[in-house]
Amino acid sequence: MTIQAGVQPQATHAFAALYTEVQQFYAHQMHLLDLSEGESWAATFTEDATFDVPTLPEPVTGRASLAAATARTAAELSAAGQRHRHFMGMFHVAERPDGAVSVRSYATVYVSRIGGDSQVHRVCVCDDVLVRVDGALQVRSRKVTRDDLA
Amino acid sequence: MTIQAGVQPQATHAFAALYTEVQQFYAHQMHLLDLSEGESWAATFTEDATFDVPTLPEPVTGRASLAAATARTAAELSAAGQRHRHFMGMFHVAERPDGAVSVRSYATVYVSRIGGDSQVHRVCVCDDVLVRVDGALQVRSRKVTRDDLA
Amino acid sequence: MTIQAGVQPQATHAFAALYTEVQQFYAHQMHLLDLSEGESWAATFTEDATFDVPTLPEPVTGRASLAAATARTAAELSAAGQRHRHFMGMFHVAERPDGAVSVRSYATVYVSRIGGDSQVHRVCVCDDVLVRVDGALQVRSRKVTRDDLA
Repeated sequence: MTIQAGVQPQATHAFAALYTEVQQFYAHQMHLLDLSEGESWAATFTEDATFDVPTLPEPVTGRASLAAATARTAAELSAAGQRHRHFMGMFHVAERPDGAVSVRSYATVYVSRIGGDSQVHRVCVCDDVLVRVDGALQVRSRKVTRDDLA
Repeated sequence: MTIQAGVQPQATHAFAALYTEVQQFYAHQMHLLDLSEGESWAATFTEDATFDVPTLPEPVTGRASLAAATARTAAELSAAGQRHRHFMGMFHVAERPDGAVSVRSYATVYVSRIGGDSQVHRVCVCDDVLVRVDGALQVRSRKVTRDDLA
Repeated sequence: MTIQAGVQPQATHAFAALYTEVQQFYAHQMHLLDLSEGESWAATFTEDATFDVPTLPEPVTGRASLAAATARTAAELSAAGQRHRHFMGMFHVAERPDGAVSVRSYATVYVSRIGGDSQVHRVCVCDDVLVRVDGALQVRSRKVTRDDLA
């Protein structure tokens, strides 16, 4: 399942370009989230993106709902004197026949108490489908699972 | 020791291809491990791979032994209501004169209790030698050290 | 803000080369730090680099000061029977018009007690400016912020 098995240099260079673009994309997206820039963060999803995470009672659809959910979390964290940090990695990137890109990754969420300590909050797996809109990657669907839930 | 110092674009493109292939390889390998797909995980090692980790009383050799050790750990975790997650990163990749690839990386292992919390389990350094078999990377030797051990 | 939006393959290949070089650079730099190789670590900064981290009472300038600060920390950790591990990721890489490279990343510092447990020590954001000296990347300025500080 290693992507490059037996392929030509041209294909490996194209994979390198995609893989690094994906890494840059997630860094940018999570920097926005952790800066509480909810509107800009929501704009890294497609207009009709679906977002399915255990923290929310049901899947959310669309940028306005995404931004609203993020604003609520940011307000709660601020009131509690806490910060979250979303550290993703271990990206497995696979181009699909329809041109979309499947990305499975790990995401650790850290929580820090201002004036206190930092610790692991959640350990998650993130399954995304990315599509290219006007040349840039956007998330069309995201499904997050948490290791502490059955 | 930065690989690209003074080299040509062609060399930097080849390095980018190798570096991203290595990242994809580790993501795939650890996804398999964390999914308890021990046989598929073992197949990412060479037939005669050596595997030296502090958790095992002595180094293990060969895929059958690797799969068996993994199955034991998976059974123990399941019985304890826990999950492990292997998050690697900080890859330093160096091609050797014989064509093998040395990779030093960091690996954090998280443990989550189902219905409980998540925390850091182990912090490790992983020294691997990768070789190419039928076009795909495989681990020929792995030596893991743990920060909490002398 | 995704770098590759609408650009040509040549540009995406150049970005892949830079992005992987940056990742390799940080892996190498932090491996040196965690091995307590302070002099070699300091040599990954420019001669006149500025280093602004919350742990130090004031910003440090120059390699000798960097190496001295690192040696102090290494001695304190050794006396306390502890190890630190610097795990960086989530790199956002942007070339600047002047040829320098801005890199924002996340850095988790783990602490392990020899014969004891491992846990999160600090969660940080690292804002660097890298420049190329004799073909190799070096840090010209680093500013680190910690999530647990106001």
